Amino acid sequence: MATEHPVKAFGWAARDPSGHLSPFNFSRRATGEKDVQFKVLYCGICHSDLAMIKNEWGSTPYPIVPGHEFVGVVTEVGSKVTKVKVGDKVGVGCLVESCRSCEMCTEDLENYCPKMVLTYGNKHPDGSITYGGYSDIMVADEHFVLSWPEKLPLDAGAPLLCAGITTYSPLRHFGLDKPGTHVGVVGLGGLGHVAVKFAKAFGAKVTVISTSESKKKEAIEKLGADAFLVSRDPEQMQAAAGTMDGIIDTVSAVHAIMPLINLIKSQGKLICVGAPDKPVELHTVALLTGRKTVSGSCIGGLKETQEMLDFAAEHNIAADIELIQMDYVNTAMERLAKADVRYRFVIDVGNTLSKSA
Amino acid sequence: MATEHPVKAFGWAARDPSGHLSPFNFSRRATGEKDVQFKVLYCGICHSDLAMIKNEWGSTPYPIVPGHEFVGVVTEVGSKVTKVKVGDKVGVGCLVESCRSCEMCTEDLENYCPKMVLTYGNKHPDGSITYGGYSDIMVADEHFVLSWPEKLPLDAGAPLLCAGITTYSPLRHFGLDKPGTHVGVVGLGGLGHVAVKFAKAFGAKVTVISTSESKKKEAIEKLGADAFLVSRDPEQMQAAAGTMDGIIDTVSAVHAIMPLINLIKSQGKLICVGAPDKPVELHTVALLTGRKTVSGSCIGGLKETQEMLDFAAEHNIAADIELIQMDYVNTAMERLAKADVRYRFVIDVGNTLSKSA
Repeated sequence: MATEHPVKAFGWAARDPSGHLSPFNFSRRATGEKDVQFKVLYCGICHSDLAMIKNEWGSTPYPIVPGHEFVGVVTEVGSKVTKVKVGDKVGVGCLVESCRSCEMCTEDLENYCPKMVLTYGNKHPDGSITYGGYSDIMVADEHFVLSWPEKLPLDAGAPLLCAGITTYSPLRHFGLDKPGTHVGVVGLGGLGHVAVKFAKAFGAKVTVISTSESKKKEAIEKLGADAFLVSRDPEQMQAAAGTMDGIIDTVSAVHAIMPLINLIKSQGKLICVGAPDKPVELHTVALLTGRKTVSGSCIGGLKETQEMLDFAAEHNIAADIELIQMDYVNTAMERLAKADVRYRFVIDVGNTLSKSA
Repeated sequence: MATEHPVKAFGWAARDPSGHLSPFNFSRRATGEKDVQFKVLYCGICHSDLAMIKNEWGSTPYPIVPGHEFVGVVTEVGSKVTKVKVGDKVGVGCLVESCRSCEMCTEDLENYCPKMVLTYGNKHPDGSITYGGYSDIMVADEHFVLSWPEKLPLDAGAPLLCAGITTYSPLRHFGLDKPGTHVGVVGLGGLGHVAVKFAKAFGAKVTVISTSESKKKEAIEKLGADAFLVSRDPEQMQAAAGTMDGIIDTVSAVHAIMPLINLIKSQGKLICVGAPDKPVELHTVALLTGRKTVSGSCIGGLKETQEMLDFAAEHNIAADIELIQMDYVNTAMERLAKADVRYRFVIDVGNTLSKSA
């Protein structure tokens, strides 16, 4: 059962592993002294929303209100809030709490804090369930609230709060943010298309690696990628062997990583940001011969997320989106499951959050 | 067939995948202007010698003279040699040539040069086969010849040229060389026991991870390890979860790496230096949740190898060896196959290289 809080809230929730979303009344906590309350305007649909509503990771507490890429306008702030004021535009990403004192937290890596609380489908220390951005209002500690840059669009910018930071952070951390660096991006979906934009903004040469030729024209002409590789074509893949400094692998479906390791140079880095549910085969000897690295990276800390938003605003980077009404969400989920979206659905929560399905 | 060179040489070679070693006459090139010729005194037996004589990697050109950890005394130098003079003690490790101009070579990482030539069982650009240290004399370009530090024993120091640099390099490169760092060492053989010594010399806390309890006393009392984990004991392994900054995995037999990834902290690094001949299972999602890394590392460049020898001399680090006569080598190989050596065989080549088996 949902814990009762004093503030009435309304959103759309899935009740069972069918994943069907429908109107849902719940509650949020009163605005604490360091809390920011805001009216939600736009919320991106992340692939993990789909996985969570269908309980694909086996951890979903129903009813679940998804959404961890959302922006809105501040309606109330606690007495000790200094970051924003009523009327400001703000956003919330994947996390809403962390211990604030561990090694990770003190290094601004709250996203790796063992006590990190996810924005939805997770538990606060008091046991109450977290609810995400497919809802009318949100409340969170100001530390986990991002200031929205003036120049960044609210709708197309929302997906940056997950898709953006998920790709920006490893590009930065693993040194793939230098002009002249050759970066591969595997998978041209919500994450991949933003990865291309950031890598190009850093001055990298970008090669998109995809299972089919279908997105080639778009990748090059629209997103600005320099090259395109069809991963199912062994000749193309071999011709590109040893040419990349690093690869951001955004694919969540189980897929072979050895052909990707073959694409990177000595000292190159393959960074996985997708989460396949089964193990893959790794020949460690292929890492030895070039001091290569396979790493994972998961979203980013709050400081870096703010930096990413500011960088995106400065470089006119946002997601390519299809803006939908709330009552289209179940259809959108079906289409997302077939990768039928270029490249992110964003729900116009502020204008279309209807009380009936 | 062996290419004919002007200088007669003599060693022990394997002729076929039985791996049986016996006396062998061959030749080496005349001392070129940048070459150093030396009389071999001691040569370590590396596990890859065993793999190569038995053609386990499918690439062995017979007859093969193994040995890539050897030291000796300079007998002749070319006119342009500046590093050493006749009478100096020198060593040669795993490589004897590289292109000297690629990105890796210019970064002192000749060991990752695509044109790197291995000390034995490999081909010079002219097509002639390289022969290793189970032989009376050696000749190599001075760039690939190490100056032997005065304080470093010739016999027990020889294995550092492979086992030493193979573990020293990743400890340095991956930042596991800081006081207070917690380093795991998997496998307590030729590589592992030296890894423990280097990590301790860097001031790290060292935990040895081994399949059985049998080496515990020795690891702690003799090698100075701080702790010992039996990898087959799930309780011990779980109790140590998330405690290590990095792990040097020296095991060449196929083994699971997920339990090792579980031992490292967020941002921790698992570095493989052994070369299992089959793939292992990797759940990439376990890397994501802590920005963890799996890397490989293979020996080291010449500059770093010299640095390692100097560091070893300064910190009284050498291998624990069993010194053998040349005609014991086939027995030694049998024992090595059973891991029956603590921890490295070294052949007294200078005194026992007999003309008959």
